[in-house]
Amino acid sequence: MKIAIAGCSGRMGLTLVKSVLARTDLTLVCVSERPGFDTSSVNAQLAAHGVSNIELTSDPKEMVEKADAVIDFTTPEATLAVAEAVAAKGGIHIIGTTGFADAQQKKLESLAANGCFVQSGNFSLGINLLAGLVEQAAKRLDESYDIDINEMHHRHKKDAPSGTALMLGWAAASGRGIALTPTLDRSGERKRGAIGFSVQRGGDVVGIHDVIFAGPGEMLTLSHQAFDRSIYADGALRAALWARGKKPGLYSMKDVLGL
Amino acid sequence: MKIAIAGCSGRMGLTLVKSVLARTDLTLVCVSERPGFDTSSVNAQLAAHGVSNIELTSDPKEMVEKADAVIDFTTPEATLAVAEAVAAKGGIHIIGTTGFADAQQKKLESLAANGCFVQSGNFSLGINLLAGLVEQAAKRLDESYDIDINEMHHRHKKDAPSGTALMLGWAAASGRGIALTPTLDRSGERKRGAIGFSVQRGGDVVGIHDVIFAGPGEMLTLSHQAFDRSIYADGALRAALWARGKKPGLYSMKDVLGL
Amino acid sequence: MKIAIAGCSGRMGLTLVKSVLARTDLTLVCVSERPGFDTSSVNAQLAAHGVSNIELTSDPKEMVEKADAVIDFTTPEATLAVAEAVAAKGGIHIIGTTGFADAQQKKLESLAANGCFVQSGNFSLGINLLAGLVEQAAKRLDESYDIDINEMHHRHKKDAPSGTALMLGWAAASGRGIALTPTLDRSGERKRGAIGFSVQRGGDVVGIHDVIFAGPGEMLTLSHQAFDRSIYADGALRAALWARGKKPGLYSMKDVLGL
Amino acid sequence: MKIAIAGCSGRMGLTLVKSVLARTDLTLVCVSERPGFDTSSVNAQLAAHGVSNIELTSDPKEMVEKADAVIDFTTPEATLAVAEAVAAKGGIHIIGTTGFADAQQKKLESLAANGCFVQSGNFSLGINLLAGLVEQAAKRLDESYDIDINEMHHRHKKDAPSGTALMLGWAAASGRGIALTPTLDRSGERKRGAIGFSVQRGGDVVGIHDVIFAGPGEMLTLSHQAFDRSIYADGALRAALWARGKKPGLYSMKDVLGL
Repeated sequence: MKIAIAGCSGRMGLTLVKSVLARTDLTLVCVSERPGFDTSSVNAQLAAHGVSNIELTSDPKEMVEKADAVIDFTTPEATLAVAEAVAAKGGIHIIGTTGFADAQQKKLESLAANGCFVQSGNFSLGINLLAGLVEQAAKRLDESYDIDINEMHHRHKKDAPSGTALMLGWAAASGRGIALTPTLDRSGERKRGAIGFSVQRGGDVVGIHDVIFAGPGEMLTLSHQAFDRSIYADGALRAALWARGKKPGLYSMKDVLGL
Repeated sequence: MKIAIAGCSGRMGLTLVKSVLARTDLTLVCVSERPGFDTSSVNAQLAAHGVSNIELTSDPKEMVEKADAVIDFTTPEATLAVAEAVAAKGGIHIIGTTGFADAQQKKLESLAANGCFVQSGNFSLGINLLAGLVEQAAKRLDESYDIDINEMHHRHKKDAPSGTALMLGWAAASGRGIALTPTLDRSGERKRGAIGFSVQRGGDVVGIHDVIFAGPGEMLTLSHQAFDRSIYADGALRAALWARGKKPGLYSMKDVLGL
Repeated sequence: MKIAIAGCSGRMGLTLVKSVLARTDLTLVCVSERPGFDTSSVNAQLAAHGVSNIELTSDPKEMVEKADAVIDFTTPEATLAVAEAVAAKGGIHIIGTTGFADAQQKKLESLAANGCFVQSGNFSLGINLLAGLVEQAAKRLDESYDIDINEMHHRHKKDAPSGTALMLGWAAASGRGIALTPTLDRSGERKRGAIGFSVQRGGDVVGIHDVIFAGPGEMLTLSHQAFDRSIYADGALRAALWARGKKPGLYSMKDVLGL
Repeated sequence: MKIAIAGCSGRMGLTLVKSVLARTDLTLVCVSERPGFDTSSVNAQLAAHGVSNIELTSDPKEMVEKADAVIDFTTPEATLAVAEAVAAKGGIHIIGTTGFADAQQKKLESLAANGCFVQSGNFSLGINLLAGLVEQAAKRLDESYDIDINEMHHRHKKDAPSGTALMLGWAAASGRGIALTPTLDRSGERKRGAIGFSVQRGGDVVGIHDVIFAGPGEMLTLSHQAFDRSIYADGALRAALWARGKKPGLYSMKDVLGL
């Protein structure tokens, strides 16, 4: 399968490039940078990571022309330009970009009539599987099981709880059929049925998430630990392979994993 | 709902009696002991746990006549006698008894044509839910995710791994589509695709079970901790409530929980 | 060794009574209740827990006269009355009472010139040992190791973080040589050197405490889980045995454990 | 402080080189390879990891002449040659080499009369601190606390339990004052006072170690997780800084950390 990677010189772009090059079932046909990029600087950065002789472009159409699938963790604007090229020609677009405004998300959804899109806020297999299991557990366990989401990340992380903790909270809330109002406040007795959050920060922890269901006489804990950011790249590539032959539409990692 | 409890004076029988008496939606109509039991001794034992004025019998038919459901953690022989009475009259039989020989299990299955039976090796809601989640995770995660089942129990437990660890191992093996050959042996490099077991023993731990899926760059851990043996009684009572109005058949806790 | 228990009919008093009766190296010589108590009602409560034929008093002097050690988890006022009797006659006083005002604590300290007092906010062996280990670890690990205290308790607990979490935080702060300002706030990047707190609430968890030292490339976690409130009674009895033959003074569980 | 690194082109040697270069308080003055090494091949390997312009030698005396401290994770033979040079001139020798025969270890000990040696089987700060805490906890907790050592490593690890698990087991045995006979066997009831081991293998886990003290009504767990092999390099460099100005002798990481 022929792969193109949008936004090749950022942290996630480089991780994606290295992940594709490490596999034998995928071929990296080209990478892109934003219009006006400096070729020699991008090539230098790729070379510093041991990558050379890759075709570089800033034209979404060219990427879509050459590749079976475009992997894209960039910006909403850049992603929409690729999505338009995919919708025009037909193809696969794996979208890890976040931060779409409502209108941008709507636009993406309409373009999905003519292209096969997989969009997710977290492409790790483990976290997506976990979210599905959490939703099911929350559906089976009534309010006598208190749900708490706990997460730990490195000392430099500024937002709390993490986006992934919120994603797990939404999965639990959806399973339980309630709305979610995340808070770290713990004053007073626990509110029946509510979903709690707690946060640790320290060291260089990549990411630990626990979803706790504490009920009468027992406790169920569903946990995920990330050791390496490459798992996000691996998830995106898995999505690309899954999307082959699928009808146009906007899919999620839940579809990819059949959850 | 009217409940009868078979084998009322053993450890699990007493736990069941106390669990039913603590609820307002269930009425304890009678309890049984094996034929030839000593009435005053059984009553004394019940009294020591604060239970009095309960009707005692050794006749399965009488129990089935009086109750909507019989809860039964006894022996295969005693359970089959109750099952025959249930099949004759129609009713609900919740079976936590273990150790059925193949022929006994076959007999039970044929009796289920005329009674509503729920049978399980572990009636805790959490463990049954966990087993279902484990099976699903094992189905989604390929052999690049190594599966290990870890359990810890109190210092007096003699068998290892625990029956529940084996149940979780079977769930994982079923999800992965392989046979299970449990061993604690760890010599040499890990065999691809195999399911490993590990065991801790110590203190008065009621029961801790972890199912680990360790893959490339990430680890998913699904865990259960039991604090109190009453969770097994609670699971059996939940099964009884679920079974009301169900057609005859041999059900499991998986059915009760809709997994 | 002859033991008296102050405040016998409360939750902790009953736990203490049962713990002493279960041992062969200790004899329960009498129990007390506050002046004006209703003998038949206290005896009924003791009987409901299988305890009978215990001598009951409301006179601190009588307790001190009869026993080698008085175990006391009551109120500051009641405890000071016992402490005065101990100081007058000489003896052992194990104090689990909390909430002393400064003046009351001073009074206790002056009485300790003539009695052997052991005072602690938490008599569990494990937690006290943990606090000592935490202080040492905090002394050895510099600010590149972020310290976080995490605790989980049952859904009904109203204060957060728990007193024991604070005690562990003080141990860590003392080891690191800093002051402690406990907060659950997690906004913005982690402050270098600070000690963080996080809290889960759910089910009927008796008590889980983790002290995390997250540093460059590694993480040390020192954890305690309580399964049963009887560990507080066991710790108090251990303190009583330790105090035999000790000179008058105000000791802590740290002294008892030689930390 | 001027540092030389013996055995620069192996996995651990390269980690050490990169760790020294990343710091401002240490200067890398030279690196060594075994006599007869191929200069251009070693330089190429260093360059592949972004290291250039480092002086290369195969002469232990030259290293010792130029550096304040030699860091050495090589072979017993190579380490003894460096140790002789250090003993002749005086200096610091940090030894992470393992597998010394008894006679070789004796030789090292006699050379320590004239050089400052720090030798350890595991230079990570966290694990060494943990071993010290484990020894203390084992000293304080009697046989009613069962000790279990649990470890998890990546799927390729062939020996079990890990050397570090054994080191923690020895620390516990030393604290308890017993001999250690490590086994994964779990048949029959737990032997009072014994130290148990359990092992998980899976994924690419760098290293997880738990030391469990499970007693009456409570459980203390002391855990370490390694995220990155660079922690072993960091520990060795810490040892080098500590050794400045110390008298000749054979020290361990326990001395470095003041445990």
